[in-house]
This record gives sequence, C-alpha cells and structure tokens, in this order.
Amino acid sequence: MITVYGYPCSGNCHKLKLLLTQLGREFKWVDIDSTCGETRTPEFLGKNPNGKVPMIELEDGRILTESNAILCWLAEGTPFWTGDAWQRAQVLSWLFFEQYSHEPYIAVARFIRGWSPLDSPRRATLAQLRERGHQALAVMEQHLAAGHEWFSGEAYGIADIALFAYTVVADEGGFDVSRYPQIREWLARVMKTPGFVAMPSPPVEVASRLALPD
Amino acid sequence: MITVYGYPCSGNCHKLKLLLTQLGREFKWVDIDSTCGETRTPEFLGKNPNGKVPMIELEDGRILTESNAILCWLAEGTPFWTGDAWQRAQVLSWLFFEQYSHEPYIAVARFIRGWSPLDSPRRATLAQLRERGHQALAVMEQHLAAGHEWFSGEAYGIADIALFAYTVVADEGGFDVSRYPQIREWLARVMKTPGFVAMPSPPVEVASRLALPD
Repeated sequence: MITVYGYPCSGNCHKLKLLLTQLGREFKWVDIDSTCGETRTPEFLGKNPNGKVPMIELEDGRILTESNAILCWLAEGTPFWTGDAWQRAQVLSWLFFEQYSHEPYIAVARFIRGWSPLDSPRRATLAQLRERGHQALAVMEQHLAAGHEWFSGEAYGIADIALFAYTVVADEGGFDVSRYPQIREWLARVMKTPGFVAMPSPPVEVASRLALPD
Repeated sequence: MITVYGYPCSGNCHKLKLLLTQLGREFKWVDIDSTCGETRTPEFLGKNPNGKVPMIELEDGRILTESNAILCWLAEGTPFWTGDAWQRAQVLSWLFFEQYSHEPYIAVARFIRGWSPLDSPRRATLAQLRERGHQALAVMEQHLAAGHEWFSGEAYGIADIALFAYTVVADEGGFDVSRYPQIREWLARVMKTPGFVAMPSPPVEVASRLALPD
C-alpha cells in the first residue's frame, strides 16, 4: 500500500488524497506538519532532501516527491491522464503552469494570511502576490471561456485536480473569485465528480486569521 | 517543422535548442525578447495567454507552452526520457523541482543582476534568493554524491537538460558553484554529450552588469 506523507490543509498534499480516493486506491496517510518543522527533521530529510510534502513511499521504501509528478505516476494508465502524446503534454503544460504561475502566488498568499503572524513582514508582499495570482486566474478563465470544460482535455483529470487544489481556496488568500464566472462553474463541476473529497478546514487559529481583512 | 519562440539567453528557452539539436531535429527559431515586452503583444498573447517564452508552434498552428512540458513532448519515445513509469515519474519530479525550487531563485537572481537597473529595488531580494538557490544546489549535490551520474536515470536525459540550463550560469546570479564539486563534474559531463550546444553570451550591456559585484 502507498504511504502519503502530507499536511492535510496543503492543497499540494490534498491533490493526492483526491486522486487516490477517486481512483479507489487504498493508501495510508501520515500527517506531517510542514508549518512547524516536521519536514526538516533528519528522518524526513533522509527520505526527501528537499524537505517538502507531499511525498509518497512504496512498501519497498522507494520515494517519489513533487505533487504533480506523483499525480502523473498515479494517473498513468487511468482515465485521469489520457490522450495522445500531444494531449498528455498539454496536461503537463498546465501542471507546470500551476506550479510556476499559480501556486507561488495563490497558495503563498493563503499561507501568509493564515499561517504567518499578524505582524509578519511577509504580509507586505500580499499586494504583489495578488496581482500575479490574478494573472493566473485570468489565464484559466480564458481557457474555460474558449469552450473547454476541463483543463485535462475532453474529460476531468489530473490538470483539473492540480489547478483545483488552490483555486478553490483562493478566497482564503484574498482573491475575489466571483470575478471569474467560468472558474466558479468549473469548480462546481469538479466538486460533482464521483468520489470527490474536500480538503479539511484549517485549524481554528488559522481560520480566525484567514477571516480577518488584510 | 517546429517553430520555437524564445529569448536566446533564457535558460528555459535554451533547453529546447539543446534537446532539439541533440535529437538532430530541424527547427525554426524565432527570437522573442521577453525582457522588452515582446511576450506581451496582442499577437503573442493570442498564442500564449500566459505571456511567456519558450513556446513551440507546429505547422498546423497548434501551440505548446512551458519549457519542461515541451521537453517531455520532444523526448517522448527517445533515449532522453526512458525507463518504466516509476523512472519516468522520477524525471518529472526533477523537472518540477527545477521549476519550483531551483529556477525561481537561481535564474531569477541572474535575471535581476543582469537585466535590472543597478538601482532596482529588486536587488534587495538577492540575499534571500541566494539562500534558497543554495538549498536547491545542495539537493542536487547530494543526489550526485550518492553515486548517481545523471538526474534522468541511468543515462543523460531531459532532467539533466532542465537542471543544466540555469546551473551552468548560476555564477552569473552570484552563486559560487565551486562549493559543489559533484555539480561541477556533472556540468562537465553534460557539456561533453554528443551535439551539446552552449547558450549564447548575454548582450554586452547585460554582461557588464553581470560582471559587477552586487
């Protein structure tokens, strides 16, 4: 059985829980709180020198890191990553877009608002993160407005799972998603896919910070 | 024939030139200077709404974006991306590592030093970029020191091409690569692969800024 090491309120980690659940695969989940140093212990760094979750471990001890690489491996040979080489590369393109142009702004804004102290100097970067995050949301909106129902091709798949992870909680980063009607409809479509499972709510202390204005 | 839209001194763009050359494939290269707004014209945004290079266009007009997704597509079925699904996922893991934990620090430090004015406020971020970039280099050094000759598995491939792109010019970002003997040897191995082609030198004005201390 696969073991997933992850922080439950991390979109990157939740991607794997969502796909594994929708694939109907059993897995063991080990909570790793990356917000308090648990990815920087000697034991964890021995498995992933980059000190990040999520990470999966097979029964024979083999390790795979990087959420979107893990999505690809899990989805190989399933309906979640289909098509010819060109279509599969388009999915990869969205996965790299998510990690380079989306997550570093939308997920990081959420992290700073919820997980950093109210007097953190990082909060000064929120305005810039918002600007870049909105650029990513606009690119997504344009794709959907051009008549595409999904990001993974003809059907729901791993590009949708990867982009959904932090888009659905973009409001927690201070992004007004009501500006993107196509994205809102797509989020609703994802939530209706068979076996969908939502990310758990953040801890109370985090939620109370997220509820405050900037 | 494939058309590559790229800025010649961008490591992300040069990745494609290197792989296409080593594959012996003909291609057309269209210079796009992303440092002076050429990726933000209506014509370019019509092809890539995310406004970035590199981008490839097929003869029938189909577009693929994101350097590492393009590497995967080009390498499909070639010796540059081999192995079983697990091994290919390990290559993807390095590609995501490169775009998330390496390029945003090492490439961005080089860009700020060479392409931003000497009085740019972005230069204040260099110290932090160095810290994170050195973490990435340390992860690479550890992989090589564990007895791996390459990042792509048993042989040179697209994970090496992706990581080489900005590691070989890390010094231009102010990184002292002499601290990483295994990386230096690996860089030399890459430069000896058949058909290797180096990235062109930056324009004189950029090179003169790169030559200055911080």
